[in-house]
Amino acid sequence: MAKDMTLLWGSGSPPCWRVQIALEEKNLQGYNQKLLSFEKGEHKSKEVMDMNPRGQLPAFKHKTYVLNESCAACIYLETQFKSQGNQLIPDCPAEQAQMYQRIFESLTLNQKMADVIYYTWKVPEAERHDSAVKRNRETLSAELKLWEGYLQASGSFLAGKNFSLADVTVYPSIAYVFRFGLCEERYPKLAAYYNSLKSRPSIKTTWPRTWLETQGSDMLKDL
Amino acid sequence: MAKDMTLLWGSGSPPCWRVQIALEEKNLQGYNQKLLSFEKGEHKSKEVMDMNPRGQLPAFKHKTYVLNESCAACIYLETQFKSQGNQLIPDCPAEQAQMYQRIFESLTLNQKMADVIYYTWKVPEAERHDSAVKRNRETLSAELKLWEGYLQASGSFLAGKNFSLADVTVYPSIAYVFRFGLCEERYPKLAAYYNSLKSRPSIKTTWPRTWLETQGSDMLKDL
Repeated sequence: MAKDMTLLWGSGSPPCWRVQIALEEKNLQGYNQKLLSFEKGEHKSKEVMDMNPRGQLPAFKHKTYVLNESCAACIYLETQFKSQGNQLIPDCPAEQAQMYQRIFESLTLNQKMADVIYYTWKVPEAERHDSAVKRNRETLSAELKLWEGYLQASGSFLAGKNFSLADVTVYPSIAYVFRFGLCEERYPKLAAYYNSLKSRPSIKTTWPRTWLETQGSDMLKDL
Repeated sequence: MAKDMTLLWGSGSPPCWRVQIALEEKNLQGYNQKLLSFEKGEHKSKEVMDMNPRGQLPAFKHKTYVLNESCAACIYLETQFKSQGNQLIPDCPAEQAQMYQRIFESLTLNQKMADVIYYTWKVPEAERHDSAVKRNRETLSAELKLWEGYLQASGSFLAGKNFSLADVTVYPSIAYVFRFGLCEERYPKLAAYYNSLKSRPSIKTTWPRTWLETQGSDMLKDL
């Protein structure tokens, strides 16, 4: 029982979901957790700010060690609980290289996703431009095609023959773009990856509750 | 001699510099390398695109393993050459947690730096707004104050008692903001960190040549 861990999280947030998947994969259940609401601004509450001065979720700690950056938390958990649960860093150097490469590339994917999905939330009305929206969408489309190509080459998982930290960190983002209406026919490898991992226990158990209860958006359907 | 490694790099680029510092720290000299010019657009050349389809520098590989994401390359190098050169991942779990946390936070720092420094390069003229410039500068200033606080708490290095991968990945960004005129008096901990590590062999040897030859900018002097 991971009683010495605390996770403050928001439902549907890819960074929060990553940490939840990693914890499941490492058999670290029973941690202290609290579901907070982005809509109510609870990610800016004192409870969060005390752990994460950026006012973002997740806020995560093990003992007194704070790991709010979700990818950092995932790497740390695998390193500290190496022999527990599923091995998430491959032994093979080639696979390891690809895994680290994909983890850091996923931050670029997230940035490009955010530039499209959160545009009206992030950019004040007087600074919005149709040309920027168009460019951001084209940039995201090109980025997703890159990942489509990666899966075309790598097969079922992003780095090597098994599920790894690359999948822990990237899967929530791929699920996110489909939640926002990405067309499965236009991105068949991404869609196959998305659908095949839905039933993996760590992913199924942590599937965002809000996604089960509400409809997604069609914002990316023409991408 | 690291003859099985290749680095294509641009002078003054923090991501390129990170990989160079890591290679020095691990005693991996003698790698194949090529200095390319951003000004001449050489980062979009076929040679780079073949290794890095994003058309960015660095482009780095070990044997046939491509690691273009600079932080990924640094973690990989430490993992594969653990017993060679300086140890860059601390043994202590608390220090390790802090190190991974800072590595991933540095990507946020870089993003906020880029939003200010590359604004006119990234945003088409018709989409530029004084209000966005002002906000980006305030955001970067708040970010730098966060790092000032981190160094206030941690001392000479960013994670633990020794130089670690957190310093390998963050130092080039701190040097970059001072290159762009950040005021040493207003950010005394950042300035002390910047100045004290200048003479570290891995950093001194790889100091951007263009910085020795040309004047910096004063873009951040009022930040």
